[in-house]
Amino acid sequence: MAVGYKGLPELHPVPGVRLAVAEAGIKYQGRKDLVLFELDEQSSVAATFTRNAFCAAPVVLAKRHLQRRQPRYLLVNTGNANAGTGARGLSDAEACCVSLAEALNCDKEAVLPFSTGVIGEPLPVSRITAAIPALAERLAEDNWAAAAEGILTTDTVAKGSSRRFDIDGKRVTLTGIAKGSGMIRPDMGTMLAYLATDLSIDRETLQECLAAAVDVSFNRISVDGDTSTNDACVLVATGRSGVAIRKGSPGYETFVAALHEVIIELAQLIVRDGEGASKFVTIQVNGARSTDEAGRVAYTIAHSPLVKTALFASDPNWGRILAAVGRAGLEALQLEKVTIHLGDVCIVRDGGRAADYTEEQGQAVMSQDEITIRVELERGDSSTTVWTCDLSYDYVKINAEYRT
Amino acid sequence: MAVGYKGLPELHPVPGVRLAVAEAGIKYQGRKDLVLFELDEQSSVAATFTRNAFCAAPVVLAKRHLQRRQPRYLLVNTGNANAGTGARGLSDAEACCVSLAEALNCDKEAVLPFSTGVIGEPLPVSRITAAIPALAERLAEDNWAAAAEGILTTDTVAKGSSRRFDIDGKRVTLTGIAKGSGMIRPDMGTMLAYLATDLSIDRETLQECLAAAVDVSFNRISVDGDTSTNDACVLVATGRSGVAIRKGSPGYETFVAALHEVIIELAQLIVRDGEGASKFVTIQVNGARSTDEAGRVAYTIAHSPLVKTALFASDPNWGRILAAVGRAGLEALQLEKVTIHLGDVCIVRDGGRAADYTEEQGQAVMSQDEITIRVELERGDSSTTVWTCDLSYDYVKINAEYRT
Repeated sequence: MAVGYKGLPELHPVPGVRLAVAEAGIKYQGRKDLVLFELDEQSSVAATFTRNAFCAAPVVLAKRHLQRRQPRYLLVNTGNANAGTGARGLSDAEACCVSLAEALNCDKEAVLPFSTGVIGEPLPVSRITAAIPALAERLAEDNWAAAAEGILTTDTVAKGSSRRFDIDGKRVTLTGIAKGSGMIRPDMGTMLAYLATDLSIDRETLQECLAAAVDVSFNRISVDGDTSTNDACVLVATGRSGVAIRKGSPGYETFVAALHEVIIELAQLIVRDGEGASKFVTIQVNGARSTDEAGRVAYTIAHSPLVKTALFASDPNWGRILAAVGRAGLEALQLEKVTIHLGDVCIVRDGGRAADYTEEQGQAVMSQDEITIRVELERGDSSTTVWTCDLSYDYVKINAEYRT
Repeated sequence: MAVGYKGLPELHPVPGVRLAVAEAGIKYQGRKDLVLFELDEQSSVAATFTRNAFCAAPVVLAKRHLQRRQPRYLLVNTGNANAGTGARGLSDAEACCVSLAEALNCDKEAVLPFSTGVIGEPLPVSRITAAIPALAERLAEDNWAAAAEGILTTDTVAKGSSRRFDIDGKRVTLTGIAKGSGMIRPDMGTMLAYLATDLSIDRETLQECLAAAVDVSFNRISVDGDTSTNDACVLVATGRSGVAIRKGSPGYETFVAALHEVIIELAQLIVRDGEGASKFVTIQVNGARSTDEAGRVAYTIAHSPLVKTALFASDPNWGRILAAVGRAGLEALQLEKVTIHLGDVCIVRDGGRAADYTEEQGQAVMSQDEITIRVELERGDSSTTVWTCDLSYDYVKINAEYRT
């Protein structure tokens, strides 16, 4: 069970977005594995995708279609990533778009395909196309919770977040869902997240909002340091609330704040449900010369198998944190200025164990399910926060047994 | 048991080097935990140390002493790393040097201290100084095997390599020992290795030889991507064979070849004995634009928890290798040129699964104890080879239980 998971919250429908879920039998029988989003015609759509050079066929095609025209449909399958599938993968992804376009009478380029699952197996196209009529029939605005479940793979819980807030005295909605549990070190989006609002926002502004929000959310989490071939995050603005915002308009900051809240919640949910995770860990790095530098320190800690196994063991083996800071490659790092806190407990000061630190204090923090590691570098004004989890037997079990 | 370990070979004594081992009870009773090397006065000594910014007190002191004068003694303790110990750590390390210098009547700066074990605990100086008289009595040239055992911590097997070869018609010797099993991603040396030859080589040339050899051996292995605070590698040339070499002299290449053989064997032994390792994995990357680029790809594969757990499971889940290559951050990587082999089996060609690849072929390779992953990038002439191991339950067990 995901660390600190409180169940799927109420996911408010977003006027202008209809969803449908089907069991296509892509990898397993009797499992929701196909999800369709239908977007109002006037919607703006922003998206970010993985920077993995071996990006999957659906990512290549979705990016291409996005450049050509405004999307009307997002088609998501689990059970097969359609990645590492070469030229055939592209034509398979296209075949799904064509089939959907015929069934729903739209341009094939109005369909964005998304896939998640095993890498390197051919996509079972006929199973997907066979399920499209059922999908088309079931489209409804109140299907967000079913869709949140339909996009899962090794995830143990459905992940969603939703807000209602007022702009210009009108009620508007922002709802998002995400999936992801392993191969998580997103780089420009994660595997996979879909958000929608009924605000009206032009596409360029929407893309800026999404990029900024992804940068402090999905791009700040790591389960195992492995960037997926299929990461994608989509933000839709349907405009159906009748409220339009633009940069500088009164509602703009309200929307951005809500977007950050929702997207950070989704990102954290992925870490809470990290493969085998038993701890939810926040790593704050302050006083760096640049955000990049702060990130390097934070990720070196977040990716250290030694730190992660100590977290799993609830062992305040802070020497491993210190060693990780030391190998992050910071030029002219002055050790005697570095301070490291575990929760509220100062463990490292002046290049060594803090004089007043006791093992009992460290143990008390490490025994908790949610742990904050804070590093003060005192060499600049930049900060970052990264969320990660521990490395447990179950991570090895899940990834040694997956696919076999 | 270490993968493919064939037992400690005969370690030929090196004239001019005497060794002694004691049980000082530093962390455990009844365990060899203190090793002393005595070097002939005319010896040249070369050394490389960790680049971890939080380097341990003994590393700081050893570097300082090396700059001041030719060392006569190397004092190595296990059970305590004396790292993250601030100012006290330095005075503790110095106290050990002073005690040894008094007992053996030499300058304190002629002693290089080395420590390995838990980070952040104060060094039990009195236990070490109490054992020095016993060490001094036991010094002998044929103690290499005992020393190989005496420097171990979480290692399961002793690691050594030795060669005799002729230069100018005279028999010369090169012998080395190493330890290391976890926190292994050396950067300029490893935790710990000691080599000695009875050749006569000036210090500058010796340092060049060592740096070049370390770069293709200890700097090319990774167990968990964690660079230790205490890594050190020392190469001694006693000159006692009466054979002198210098750059360009007839025996120079013979020596360099033997040095690379021995040092690569030692580095590989560390990986074979990697914490929880059940596979020994060679990662070759060819056709890169630079060695650095080749290394980035090789290490991204070597550090991927997903690749490592698939190796543990003997699962030919090659999509994870492909995803790792894709996220290594190579500019303008052309997927369709990339080829990946598992052993002799081509698994990826033209950006996807090789047409003639079958799961059975991949399974046959993955079932072996020793596996080679070869990546051809076809964008330049640079290559590198990195050695690593898998990620098993036992890695988590060892590192979740260590110290507790």
